[in-house]
Amino acid sequence: MQQDTHVPADDLSGFVSRAFVALGVPKPDADIVAGLMVEADLHGQDTHGVFRLRQYANRLRDGGTNPKPTIKTIRDAGATALVDGDNGLGHLAMLHATDLAIEKARAHGIGWVGVRNGNHAGPAALYVTRIAERTMIGLYGAVGSANHVPPFGGTDLLLGTNPMAIAVPAGTAPPFVLDMATTVAAAGRIKTLAQRGETMPEGWMVGLDGKPLTDPARREEGFLLPIGGAKGYGLAMALGLLAGTLNGAAFGRDVVEFSKDTTSPTNTGQFVAALSIEAFGDVSAFKATADAVFADLCASPPLPGHDAVRIPGSNRDAVRKQRLDRGIPLHANLVSVLADIAAELDIPALAA
Amino acid sequence: MQQDTHVPADDLSGFVSRAFVALGVPKPDADIVAGLMVEADLHGQDTHGVFRLRQYANRLRDGGTNPKPTIKTIRDAGATALVDGDNGLGHLAMLHATDLAIEKARAHGIGWVGVRNGNHAGPAALYVTRIAERTMIGLYGAVGSANHVPPFGGTDLLLGTNPMAIAVPAGTAPPFVLDMATTVAAAGRIKTLAQRGETMPEGWMVGLDGKPLTDPARREEGFLLPIGGAKGYGLAMALGLLAGTLNGAAFGRDVVEFSKDTTSPTNTGQFVAALSIEAFGDVSAFKATADAVFADLCASPPLPGHDAVRIPGSNRDAVRKQRLDRGIPLHANLVSVLADIAAELDIPALAA
Repeated sequence: MQQDTHVPADDLSGFVSRAFVALGVPKPDADIVAGLMVEADLHGQDTHGVFRLRQYANRLRDGGTNPKPTIKTIRDAGATALVDGDNGLGHLAMLHATDLAIEKARAHGIGWVGVRNGNHAGPAALYVTRIAERTMIGLYGAVGSANHVPPFGGTDLLLGTNPMAIAVPAGTAPPFVLDMATTVAAAGRIKTLAQRGETMPEGWMVGLDGKPLTDPARREEGFLLPIGGAKGYGLAMALGLLAGTLNGAAFGRDVVEFSKDTTSPTNTGQFVAALSIEAFGDVSAFKATADAVFADLCASPPLPGHDAVRIPGSNRDAVRKQRLDRGIPLHANLVSVLADIAAELDIPALAA
Repeated sequence: MQQDTHVPADDLSGFVSRAFVALGVPKPDADIVAGLMVEADLHGQDTHGVFRLRQYANRLRDGGTNPKPTIKTIRDAGATALVDGDNGLGHLAMLHATDLAIEKARAHGIGWVGVRNGNHAGPAALYVTRIAERTMIGLYGAVGSANHVPPFGGTDLLLGTNPMAIAVPAGTAPPFVLDMATTVAAAGRIKTLAQRGETMPEGWMVGLDGKPLTDPARREEGFLLPIGGAKGYGLAMALGLLAGTLNGAAFGRDVVEFSKDTTSPTNTGQFVAALSIEAFGDVSAFKATADAVFADLCASPPLPGHDAVRIPGSNRDAVRKQRLDRGIPLHANLVSVLADIAAELDIPALAA
């Protein structure tokens, strides 16, 4: 097996930014999106970071994504707003929406901001952790950028993996960060396995014949299973209604498969909300209680065969520190894809 | 097998109200809670309706629940509020919180109201459907009234089934109503099976030895499994932080098992939020899109061995109509429990 190549975070974000600039994205926007993509990799969310550059570049190249969007708040009701991402790179609209939600939470206790005409925006954790850093609770939901899931008991692929996230700050403990697809496995994880030539465990996907599907290269022949059966279906649908329909964004049959269709606007919908902890009580009391709850959970003796109990997201900072020190590990296939992109765009290849 | 007894809804709510009055609850409050409990049964949520009278009565009798609460809004930040339920019957604080959330959503686009010092409040659907009836989207989360779930990979019972709910109105279609525990099975469903002497399927619970547990009478010897493994654990924890910790309510080791401990205040925490559809766009366009999405999902050809695809909550109105016509079916064991309560409280028994 080939070793991963380790690349310093700054080199990687510089490369990604230059690729975007070569594709017509203004330098300030290119830097913002490249920075967020590399942040995803730094935190170990490899399937939602620089790995996605190929897809973003194809859509920018073919006109599916607008390189120079004008992001606008088109509705504002005080504690809520609707942002139009003008079909730009999804991170730009989401960052705008996140900061608006934080501002609204300061003024009204909560801010809930929807996005329409957005695009794939990387991992949800990017946005909810930004909120948690302001000592607020962050919530996020999105319509997945492709339909891989049928309604429960059905066969038409009308639903995405529709992810959700929540981040809750604590005191001395790292924040709680849950960032999850409503399917047993995320589509990005399956794509990564396919790129690496590895297989999936049973239970992630089934074929349209109802039989288990374990070869990620055959993922088009089946569908992803929702968590908890009908419950995961209900969750995916709820997120679709909140992030898609409510915002006038695509949900259901209107969803554009963004990795295959590189020319159509996706009208991707997301929402992000910030809840002010201060609006509900004393912030230091909240932090102390969160620390105590986290400690109690982690002190629970493990089940036979299990590691120590963990709080979701608690290893993010350690992974980030390690990757800042040692560089971000890139699989050989991804290194090769990035070299192709450099050649296509006539920009300097990533030094490795 | 014994036939269920069918009781007219009005007779049942009259009986429940008289029981509460006999336990010191003022008549107007008794009527409100009895009405909501019977509404739960009318919609088919048998595990969260009149079935719970035994538990509520025990706690009122023994001083665990305050029969004459003064419900107060103790914090208000504009779009958010915190309500103190004064340890009364949980439905009273939740109804207050729901109506406050609706009012705030009208003024600010969203209203998010937390509850502390509440109690078990019946099914979440009661509150989110009240919001959907006002053409808003309703969200709800709660800390479960007992800890049946360990953190993922652990063995200490520190988490509840922590339920969540969302209701979304449509146009001509019935509203989407998702009301789910974050465990594979809800505790109430297992209690009902125990009362009926039936068994559980594998996958609902495991023993502390890691082996499947299928006898609901032995439920104390094991724990409930979260949906999606670590994901369901994360969801339960997120709901606990939002409904419990944020509101200064119990979560984790502080949770009081309300059916066993009939003398301690539970400090139950819930939250309810209303999102104004109007704040995000044209309401009739939203309704038409929701109808179209629901129709697309239902038109999906079923998987072999499955019924037609359903939208969560779509059968609620039909069940209600049938039960209004034919009466609410009560299992013989529940009829017997209600007779015991009548005898204890010296009120007229339910005519059957």
